[in-house]
Amino acid sequence: MNAELRTGTTFPAITDVRLTPILIADPPLLNLSGVHQPYTPRLIVEVEIEGGIVGVGETYGDTVYFERAAALAPELVGRSIGAVNSIGGIGRGASTLLDAQPAASGLRGALTTDKVRLSVLSAFEVAALDALGRYLGVPVHTLLGGKVRDRVEYSGYLFYKWAEHPVDDAPADDWGAALDPAGVVQLARKFFEYGGFRSFKLKGGVMPPDEEIAAIKALAAEFPGMPLRLDPNGGWSLPTALHVAQELTGVVEYLEDPAVTVADMAEVHRRTGIPLATNMIVTALDEVKPAFDQDAVQIVLSDHHYWGGLFATRDLAAVCRAYGRGLSMHSNTHLGISLAAMTHVAATVPDLEYACDSHYPWQSEDVVTERITFTEGAVTVPDAPGLGVTLDRDAVARLHERWNAMPHLHDRDDIAAMRRADPGYQDPGIPKY
Amino acid sequence: MNAELRTGTTFPAITDVRLTPILIADPPLLNLSGVHQPYTPRLIVEVEIEGGIVGVGETYGDTVYFERAAALAPELVGRSIGAVNSIGGIGRGASTLLDAQPAASGLRGALTTDKVRLSVLSAFEVAALDALGRYLGVPVHTLLGGKVRDRVEYSGYLFYKWAEHPVDDAPADDWGAALDPAGVVQLARKFFEYGGFRSFKLKGGVMPPDEEIAAIKALAAEFPGMPLRLDPNGGWSLPTALHVAQELTGVVEYLEDPAVTVADMAEVHRRTGIPLATNMIVTALDEVKPAFDQDAVQIVLSDHHYWGGLFATRDLAAVCRAYGRGLSMHSNTHLGISLAAMTHVAATVPDLEYACDSHYPWQSEDVVTERITFTEGAVTVPDAPGLGVTLDRDAVARLHERWNAMPHLHDRDDIAAMRRADPGYQDPGIPKY
Ligand SMILES: [Mg+2]
Ligand SMILES: [Mg+2]
Repeated sequence: MNAELRTGTTFPAITDVRLTPILIADPPLLNLSGVHQPYTPRLIVEVEIEGGIVGVGETYGDTVYFERAAALAPELVGRSIGAVNSIGGIGRGASTLLDAQPAASGLRGALTTDKVRLSVLSAFEVAALDALGRYLGVPVHTLLGGKVRDRVEYSGYLFYKWAEHPVDDAPADDWGAALDPAGVVQLARKFFEYGGFRSFKLKGGVMPPDEEIAAIKALAAEFPGMPLRLDPNGGWSLPTALHVAQELTGVVEYLEDPAVTVADMAEVHRRTGIPLATNMIVTALDEVKPAFDQDAVQIVLSDHHYWGGLFATRDLAAVCRAYGRGLSMHSNTHLGISLAAMTHVAATVPDLEYACDSHYPWQSEDVVTERITFTEGAVTVPDAPGLGVTLDRDAVARLHERWNAMPHLHDRDDIAAMRRADPGYQDPGIPKY
Repeated sequence: MNAELRTGTTFPAITDVRLTPILIADPPLLNLSGVHQPYTPRLIVEVEIEGGIVGVGETYGDTVYFERAAALAPELVGRSIGAVNSIGGIGRGASTLLDAQPAASGLRGALTTDKVRLSVLSAFEVAALDALGRYLGVPVHTLLGGKVRDRVEYSGYLFYKWAEHPVDDAPADDWGAALDPAGVVQLARKFFEYGGFRSFKLKGGVMPPDEEIAAIKALAAEFPGMPLRLDPNGGWSLPTALHVAQELTGVVEYLEDPAVTVADMAEVHRRTGIPLATNMIVTALDEVKPAFDQDAVQIVLSDHHYWGGLFATRDLAAVCRAYGRGLSMHSNTHLGISLAAMTHVAATVPDLEYACDSHYPWQSEDVVTERITFTEGAVTVPDAPGLGVTLDRDAVARLHERWNAMPHLHDRDDIAAMRRADPGYQDPGIPKY
């Protein structure tokens, strides 16, 4: 190293972290446990660095996430923006179980304190990468090693749904009801018109399995050759899962979480050969080995939120590559910040062979100034500095006011939402069918 | 995305790739197969981008690497420096076996065309990252997500060696001979004086195993509590490996490649419990699963050269993390460019719990203007833009002249070198003992 180069690069330090919980409108989408509430919480993270540049991130907004974010945010302040890797170590420690019920914890496996921590750090990392990208004038994908594609494909994410929420003063949507095969096909047509999607996923576990099989077959008839997926969130017994797998082998691209245990997933695959995807039995690094060892999973659905960020998503992609597993991307209700983050990291994964999932079309509200669009089912990878999105502070303020005004909706509860339509409704539990 | 941000970032394109094969002085270090030749080949890669910034990389220089590099270099030209990830796809195709003999191919497992390709692309990637770092004014570690430590620890890499090469006009060295336990201890003292190393590795497979056991025990007596390693490059039969493992359990930190097959490695670990490291049975992604499935390896020795670059090294670290395996770093003869690259990537791996290997102290010549130093066994992570090293073009030219003048040394051949001392010398093969 010569004298000139010995001079170290100094990066701006993080000076402030702002956390804003918000409530966003959500349509009455049905799933295994119940129905989406009219409004769902998200947490917006702003990371400001010396010089005033601000990066943005987004994650789950339920109380447990917001509180953990508030506790960990001070540890970000003072860190160099040039070392986002170090964020992953914040708050590391023993993990404890918060909720063993997969369905109750957002339909993504058991909830632990470490998953909450990683979901929070993910938003910190995304915001830090956005700030670093803006500071350097480079897109986030360059900070992840660079894009290998210019467009990231997403599947059209279909739900059984009601035409409207069963309560007054709830937000309306234009998608209509979808409660039988014809309704699902009609919804898929609207999705195709909206974003030109080249594949469809149906959230299952809602109707009796034979109705969902019929819906998938109706989609296959309407869109011949298009990759299709069905995801009952682990809600079927082993015999039911085997039955559906037999009915849909050759019809679907993969079944997603037809059963909820590693052993049952492995048996479904062994006995039917159908490819299985998961965002429930492989949701953290320590769950990889047991599931892969038993060949319970052929495609892992990554999610930068609960895997801990964009570098962690790249890491998961590497693990899948080493073990010959496919990779796709899971989604929960999210806004434009997370869609941009998903698109950046997806653009850098060489062997991403499946369209990613995104709830984004369902969200009528956003916190970015310009909505991201899907064309022929894909999002164009942003090449602008950082994530390539601009925070709409008026929208954030408005949605935060709503959060202040609706304390009963600070935690997503699909069962409680269902009880508003059916006061006697009970959590069906798993297996539901 | 607003209008301002929609404007994409444009990066300079690669305009030129220069490949310079060189020969560097190498001491008479002994190993399983023979002895190092007086000069060993390396390939220096310069990647120039629009605007004139040049990044540097370094890799194996044998003919097969140089020829592949020459064939692939034109594919780099025109690529955006903002997408180094895309380099990994260059030349991808079916891989064929070049040399099944682990020892003959540089003591790192069977040699395939794809390993050659990855070793070449690694130098391209490092040079591209160096150029990108210089262009943006950031260190390479920031482009890998940022450092999590300021110093990277290396082990003192001891070899049995002769005092001098058995030929005229060979380069001399000051390390002296090391051919018995006392000689190894004496060498270790010199290494400690040189770099303050906090751990030692001895290249084994040279002397009868009981002599090497004695050498390790002599080191343990001289440096109580210091982590020690012994690496016979797979040169022992299973009974020999078991014998050494039993003798050295509790004495060494790990044994490195005591046997050469996955099955034998697994048996050594199963029967003795000794931790085993490898840079021979896990040298590419497709070798990970078989070795991990059988628990044949507890520590993987990464090498950014043959794993395909710095991002690929991060990927391997992720695989090890998911499977609860340790990570350290393998080394072959290398110069300051590669030591800088190793240090940058090692600085970004959170769970690097073992000191890395480096041949660097053995190299008296270099192609960087200022030699990198070890203090208390560690290299300070460079914070200057790019790799933080400056190419010494006069040195490159001089070493390239030597390469031109010595065509018989274009390919490393430790057996041929041994025959110069002992004309009847035969490759001992594996197992040697
Ligand atoms: Mg799912
Ligand atoms: Mg070795």
